[in-house]
Amino acid sequence: MSGRADRVALLADAAIALLAGGGMRALTHRAVDARAGVPLGTTSAYLRTRQALIEAVVRRLVELDRIDLAAHALPADPAAPATARRLDAADLDRLATGIAELLDRWLTAGRDRTLARYACLLEAVHRPELRRILEHGTVLRVQARDLLAQAGAADPRQQGDQFVAFVDGLLFDRLVGAGALGAPPPGSPASRADLRAGVRAALRAFTGT
Amino acid sequence: MSGRADRVALLADAAIALLAGGGMRALTHRAVDARAGVPLGTTSAYLRTRQALIEAVVRRLVELDRIDLAAHALPADPAAPATARRLDAADLDRLATGIAELLDRWLTAGRDRTLARYACLLEAVHRPELRRILEHGTVLRVQARDLLAQAGAADPRQQGDQFVAFVDGLLFDRLVGAGALGAPPPGSPASRADLRAGVRAALRAFTGT
Repeated sequence: MSGRADRVALLADAAIALLAGGGMRALTHRAVDARAGVPLGTTSAYLRTRQALIEAVVRRLVELDRIDLAAHALPADPAAPATARRLDAADLDRLATGIAELLDRWLTAGRDRTLARYACLLEAVHRPELRRILEHGTVLRVQARDLLAQAGAADPRQQGDQFVAFVDGLLFDRLVGAGALGAPPPGSPASRADLRAGVRAALRAFTGT
Repeated sequence: MSGRADRVALLADAAIALLAGGGMRALTHRAVDARAGVPLGTTSAYLRTRQALIEAVVRRLVELDRIDLAAHALPADPAAPATARRLDAADLDRLATGIAELLDRWLTAGRDRTLARYACLLEAVHRPELRRILEHGTVLRVQARDLLAQAGAADPRQQGDQFVAFVDGLLFDRLVGAGALGAPPPGSPASRADLRAGVRAALRAFTGT
């Protein structure tokens, strides 16, 4: 590890693991020190307040999500330049598969991050200063709007927002809702098929295709 | 107030307000005493452990949700006996209106309860003992399955679950997600119209109607 950025990333990753394992009550500067395996006082030195610590977590979550999003799912075909070609059913099938893989990843390898993200979203209700950072969600929304516009949606702005909310609802349900009780185990082909069916239905809802 | 049940409901309501205002970290026995306006030690006397306190909250949330659900939304027409009549577009329109009203209520008068519910769902990840109680979500699912079956869905079981996840995603998004930044203010006709459009799209996704 060298440099402040790497050190803060290390601390943020430890904080994410704590949030995933025990929620906001488990997140303290001392616990982050212990989890990260750094000398006591390190987290306080880098991120003095609780607010600064949570903000570092949120920035890290956004950074890691961006990496995932660039590698997966959206846009339908990242290699292709933006075209006016209308997306057809086969495109939407492929897109649903990509998004389902990403969701399944967020339920398995990315599970801690997903839990930490929901904890931070709830925390932002009481800490308006965090909301600014959570506007990250708007990146996803813009992508969804573009995509639905290309697929012929009648009102891509409203429908893109609703599409993102639906897909996030699917993720939340499978992770912490009643869906976690009955849905196929994350990481399995059955889980990806289940998620894919949900995402494809959401696409169909807004495109009719 | 008379009787243990009334007293516990009073304490649970105070706990819900604390959870909504400050998350799990704000929930302590002493804070519940203060919020409920009862002598110090009362909450500990009725609900000794933190676990017991959170379980009382969850039971209260389930109870209040049941009352709301009985008064709103599902089934499409509570006055009619269960019939084999297939739901048509007009039925689904009415149903979407009812669900949107319920969601809007959970964003306004029921906002504290909704926030507390999400806090408890996240907490249940670390407290498996709570999950049993949260199976309450399955009540909604069964209703959604019956409804989608009546509307001609191909796979009511899977699709009913996905429908519930979508609608809950809409609620979560409007309450704490990026949707809270841009969507119409809850409690307004525009909010209900926005929610209605989302719910109607979700119904269309699974019924083709």
